[in-house]
Amino acid sequence: MNLYILRHGIAVEHGAAGYENDDERPLTGKGKRKMWAIAEAIKALEISFDLILSSPLVRARQTAEIVAEALKARKRLELTDTLAPRDSAKPLIEYLKDQGAVDDALLVGHEPFLSRLISLLISGDYETSVLLKKGGFCKLSTVELKHGRCATLEWLLTPKQMELMK
Amino acid sequence: MNLYILRHGIAVEHGAAGYENDDERPLTGKGKRKMWAIAEAIKALEISFDLILSSPLVRARQTAEIVAEALKARKRLELTDTLAPRDSAKPLIEYLKDQGAVDDALLVGHEPFLSRLISLLISGDYETSVLLKKGGFCKLSTVELKHGRCATLEWLLTPKQMELMK
Repeated sequence: MNLYILRHGIAVEHGAAGYENDDERPLTGKGKRKMWAIAEAIKALEISFDLILSSPLVRARQTAEIVAEALKARKRLELTDTLAPRDSAKPLIEYLKDQGAVDDALLVGHEPFLSRLISLLISGDYETSVLLKKGGFCKLSTVELKHGRCATLEWLLTPKQMELMK
Repeated sequence: MNLYILRHGIAVEHGAAGYENDDERPLTGKGKRKMWAIAEAIKALEISFDLILSSPLVRARQTAEIVAEALKARKRLELTDTLAPRDSAKPLIEYLKDQGAVDDALLVGHEPFLSRLISLLISGDYETSVLLKKGGFCKLSTVELKHGRCATLEWLLTPKQMELMK
């Protein structure tokens, strides 16, 4: 199973007028434009997804929607609270294991949750230091997903690098 | 300090006629061509190096020479046994610490040594699973290099991804 992990794009600042509710902060215009470039890079890399899971928060949902639209995979997009900002990755891992046969899943969410998830899966604890910028994207592969060390980090890309790949 | 890590490119097969000595195996023609493409990607990413350290084995030295030539940095290339295939990263880390003020160092070497080095620096032990293909390239950043967890993995690229960046 391949797990692709994408952090949401550039969003309206925390506490900006009109967006006092953190859950409602949308991507900025620049954030949307860059996310479209990232989606083009995902296509250039010939990656596809059986399943696209996203945090329900607006900035993550909009990120997932852009990728799903670019890849013509809107029907494979599901929102799940297990990808909302939280301390434990256990509910997400259980949710993924309940999905049955999935070869390539995309997870769209937030920091620090996502880099902690990567750390858990490649090293067994939350202490491994991996940088995931807004719009950062990586691939993990695993034979059997579990809550612990079970995966290899195959690559980790910055948004700038993806924009060079179009 | 930024540590950039590059695995040597595609080399003549182990035990091929005329290359019974593993240390002498050179890059193949395809390996050299791909390494030039990777060197172009390094330029496209606007990366430069104060110091280029390479294993003295032919396939690593040729890899480092291509990058150094592409970046017009031949005078900054040094060969060191501390990057030859070995179990411990301690001699390499001591060697690096003895270099004084270096902001951006490139290390060219072999697997499994390099991915074990990455694991040590980002997680503190040798157990974290990171894939470094032939020609694979990554960036670690650290405030104070030591033999243990001290660095963040900023990105990790496959050769195919770098070829898309030219």
